[in-house]
Amino acid sequence: MTAPLHEARPSGPGRALPDTQQGMRRRNLARVMHAVSAEGPLSRAAVASRIGLTRAAVSTLVDELIRTGLLEELGPERPGRVGRPGSALAVSGRGPSGIGAEIGVDHLAVCAVDLRGEVRARAVRHGTNRGRSPEPVVEELTGLVRRVVADAEREGLWPAGLAVAVPGLVARDARTVVRAPNLDWQDVDLGALLPGEFPLTVDNEANFGGLAELWLGADTPGDFLHVSAEIGIGAALVVNGSLLRGTRGFAGELGHVPVHPDGPGCVCGGRGCLEQYAGEEAVLRAAGLEPGEDRVGLLAGRAADGDPDVRRALREAGTALGIALTGALNLLDPEGVVLGGALAGLAPWLLPSLESELSRRTAGPARAVSVSRLGPEGPLLGAAHSVVRAVLDDPAAVAERA
Amino acid sequence: MTAPLHEARPSGPGRALPDTQQGMRRRNLARVMHAVSAEGPLSRAAVASRIGLTRAAVSTLVDELIRTGLLEELGPERPGRVGRPGSALAVSGRGPSGIGAEIGVDHLAVCAVDLRGEVRARAVRHGTNRGRSPEPVVEELTGLVRRVVADAEREGLWPAGLAVAVPGLVARDARTVVRAPNLDWQDVDLGALLPGEFPLTVDNEANFGGLAELWLGADTPGDFLHVSAEIGIGAALVVNGSLLRGTRGFAGELGHVPVHPDGPGCVCGGRGCLEQYAGEEAVLRAAGLEPGEDRVGLLAGRAADGDPDVRRALREAGTALGIALTGALNLLDPEGVVLGGALAGLAPWLLPSLESELSRRTAGPARAVSVSRLGPEGPLLGAAHSVVRAVLDDPAAVAERA
Repeated sequence: MTAPLHEARPSGPGRALPDTQQGMRRRNLARVMHAVSAEGPLSRAAVASRIGLTRAAVSTLVDELIRTGLLEELGPERPGRVGRPGSALAVSGRGPSGIGAEIGVDHLAVCAVDLRGEVRARAVRHGTNRGRSPEPVVEELTGLVRRVVADAEREGLWPAGLAVAVPGLVARDARTVVRAPNLDWQDVDLGALLPGEFPLTVDNEANFGGLAELWLGADTPGDFLHVSAEIGIGAALVVNGSLLRGTRGFAGELGHVPVHPDGPGCVCGGRGCLEQYAGEEAVLRAAGLEPGEDRVGLLAGRAADGDPDVRRALREAGTALGIALTGALNLLDPEGVVLGGALAGLAPWLLPSLESELSRRTAGPARAVSVSRLGPEGPLLGAAHSVVRAVLDDPAAVAERA
Repeated sequence: MTAPLHEARPSGPGRALPDTQQGMRRRNLARVMHAVSAEGPLSRAAVASRIGLTRAAVSTLVDELIRTGLLEELGPERPGRVGRPGSALAVSGRGPSGIGAEIGVDHLAVCAVDLRGEVRARAVRHGTNRGRSPEPVVEELTGLVRRVVADAEREGLWPAGLAVAVPGLVARDARTVVRAPNLDWQDVDLGALLPGEFPLTVDNEANFGGLAELWLGADTPGDFLHVSAEIGIGAALVVNGSLLRGTRGFAGELGHVPVHPDGPGCVCGGRGCLEQYAGEEAVLRAAGLEPGEDRVGLLAGRAADGDPDVRRALREAGTALGIALTGALNLLDPEGVVLGGALAGLAPWLLPSLESELSRRTAGPARAVSVSRLGPEGPLLGAAHSVVRAVLDDPAAVAERA
């Protein structure tokens, strides 16, 4: 069977549910949840008019969502933005929560997000994971997960699932890290190492960063290219509100797009890849600096101080990004480009040469390049929110597990 | 509103239909049509088991499809591949048909395809359209369309729609040719010039070529990059069985991916674009030949005769294609690459350098590069079949118009 290049996990309101009476009910439960989540507090009548069902049908659905603890009634005394009097509905701040985790090259982080999208607990451990074997790293991560889950439980939340962001390629099984060169991990089945009691999703940090931008960014279009960097450079392609994952799950490897085809050799086997010009270590090398732990902080600090070598290195990195992005924009025609992760912190010195290269090479109006406000928080928040979105997309499934 | 980057037109069985009882009936009619189209002749019981509905529900749907002339009953005397005795159902060879048309740089072509996928009428006019204004070209095309429709009507077919392939960028309104540099057309509204009596869809030839490959190719995966060339080089990105169109409808511009960023200037405003190394005219120039009308025939003939200049020029074009495709594969991770259009006829001389460049630059197992068997027929067949697919995807809509 052909694995779909497109998002396989449910990404719209219950899109993958079967086309039966039962499936219709589940899809309609999802519509109610999404309407209240996006625009609540709302009265039953307002929900009905938003989603095009009768008031009676909506009442039945709402009753079920209140019974299973996903919606709550604010009562007639707090009509909020509701037009006519009536009991306003809101997404519950108790009940299911999404647990997000991140395995970074230099840190571990975990957080719990409720259905309203608020972070309710978090834990971080700084220190390099480079060259450590997976078992002790995952054991430490598991400790942080248990601490965050316990904190969340004290606030009446239970974990609906765990999503883990990793700096590497993840297979379409959403649990195997196929290759994480900067951790020196290969073919690591995180599903076998992590606690089995929560539904688990593992994904590339760039993908979770792109989803965070889609869900939490300001005025993010539904079609964009999210470019992020830690040591490598990755991109998330968001198409019509979903991630484009690739047949093997490896789409978005912007770092290995050839920029100068006869340039220096790259770990991928190619030559002159973008990563050789715009990856953090390449920029440090070009600026004559030693790679340490806080690479972005070092570069940003020196650039802000006017260090000419660092500024030149970042300018050249911006030019290389502009060349690689010219190819990507010609292929994909997205509405915009968002710089996230480490690139967000370096944007003031990358953007001028990047934008001039893009406008020199592409016809028509310049494409919007914006800078993520989530920065390095993106992947962790995207992971936690992916669990929350899955609950909103199929509330009936989580209600069965409640 | 954000235009979706992904295929907006219905591309799966009735995917875009509303989620009501009526919508469910329409989606189930589509499922019956697709099952019989893909695997027919089939009995009602076989259809029911294929699509997971009861025999009684399927009978009601089948009766409606027979009444509106989309299915026909072969009778119990021809059980075909049906397991148990019963009247076998087949897609009708009369009724609605798809009219495909192509405006090429050097020709015009029109054909009619029935719901079974057979070409039932066709008309072609050779001669250059380069530099001609749109009105007389479209007038000639309209003459060919009327002739093909008349021929098809004599066989009991009526036109369910007209789809036109053009060598240029088409807006998401699916009727405006924004830019066709090799015709020298700009902002031409074909909807205003073509006869208004059929539903009209205009699309880029590379897109229709990619869809033809998806629908008619042998063992084509659901996720692939279809690369074709006439004078320009275009690509169709097929993702999970649908075209990725881009925000403005301009995705797939592989010809303007930078290959050597300091190379020769291009019409697009960029430098060193793939088209400057692997477009037909670039290859002719590199081989020291004059561009004439049958450019591919000239190159293929000389290459087959062993002309060293032509062979070298094609080898270098293959290398440039390999560099640009390395970037595309890293970004998109498709299952394979299909060379179509003019590239199919030149494949014997392009493929060796193209494949060696790809395997030199990309890690892991070599990606399958295959050659389209449809060749230059692809866009025309893709256009006609897109109309047929729309009928299969929502048979109720066409039945209302019958």
